[in-house]
Amino acid sequence: MNRMAPRKQQEIFDATVRLVAEKGYDGLTVEGVAERSGVNKTTIYRWWPSKAALLGAALVESDVLGFAAPDTGSLRGDLVALVEGVRRLLTQRPAADIAVAALAAAVRHPELDGHRFFADRFAREREIFERAAVRGELKESADPMLIVDLLAGAVWMRAVLRDLDVGDDFATEAVSAVLDGVRTR
Amino acid sequence: MNRMAPRKQQEIFDATVRLVAEKGYDGLTVEGVAERSGVNKTTIYRWWPSKAALLGAALVESDVLGFAAPDTGSLRGDLVALVEGVRRLLTQRPAADIAVAALAAAVRHPELDGHRFFADRFAREREIFERAAVRGELKESADPMLIVDLLAGAVWMRAVLRDLDVGDDFATEAVSAVLDGVRTR
Repeated sequence: MNRMAPRKQQEIFDATVRLVAEKGYDGLTVEGVAERSGVNKTTIYRWWPSKAALLGAALVESDVLGFAAPDTGSLRGDLVALVEGVRRLLTQRPAADIAVAALAAAVRHPELDGHRFFADRFAREREIFERAAVRGELKESADPMLIVDLLAGAVWMRAVLRDLDVGDDFATEAVSAVLDGVRTR
Repeated sequence: MNRMAPRKQQEIFDATVRLVAEKGYDGLTVEGVAERSGVNKTTIYRWWPSKAALLGAALVESDVLGFAAPDTGSLRGDLVALVEGVRRLLTQRPAADIAVAALAAAVRHPELDGHRFFADRFAREREIFERAAVRGELKESADPMLIVDLLAGAVWMRAVLRDLDVGDDFATEAVSAVLDGVRTR
């Protein structure tokens, strides 16, 4: 099978994530994606056998949810940038509608393989901690995935589950809590 | 309007949260709740005008998702117990199915008023931080809701979004990261 042109593939992914944002997972259809992207339905099915497979791939590869690990020169700067990125992802349109609709769908539909999205991001986030370890900024006991889950989870709690504003100071304060600790010494 | 007997109300809430776990929000109907709880449909509608109102109330008041703030004598002990509670809620059946289905629905259906669930819990979690402040365990700058969101969000990330095991050491390690900090000094 020939490769699909990358631009065409992005158009399909873009149509997929936008449709799930507009209509929810139940309203997403391969037919709808075909119509919106101008790609033949059978072509889409040749590459992705189901709408779950298509959305799973789109979550990881769509530019709308694109992600590059920050590299500011310090662990604190990198983590603040990371939290800012998650804040934008979960509060700014259209990314927020897409992320929330897709992740809510992933929770209810394991066949969507939604954790690939997080595994793929974490593979890139690791670099932040490798550089911090080289600079001697991290305790040896520190667990990179735990740090990411504390910080990203806090944004998710605040913005999505509590439905509260995530203020401009949120990233700095969350990173300070995790780096410096909140107890008296 | 007369009050409804508390036991009858719990049966309705219990039927509601179990049905949402089994069938998802789209499959939840007041008719289904009436049938499962043995309460007349018109009686249910008299108290809760829609299935969204019914599920919103059930999330806050159902015993299945019940919550009491721990009081172990130390901030560390209380937070470990709190994280253990969230871990059980998000990993043990039937609570996990209910919590995940209901919260996924809350994200997609704002009329469900799902953040009441978190506001109600936080009102009780505050006590942990009030006692810790009296004991002098917390930095003055520490923000209780941020601490809860970091810890509860990490469990949510790990168990629900990443779909990974939350190990027996998770609570201790997450609390240690937030209390003690992860950077070298």
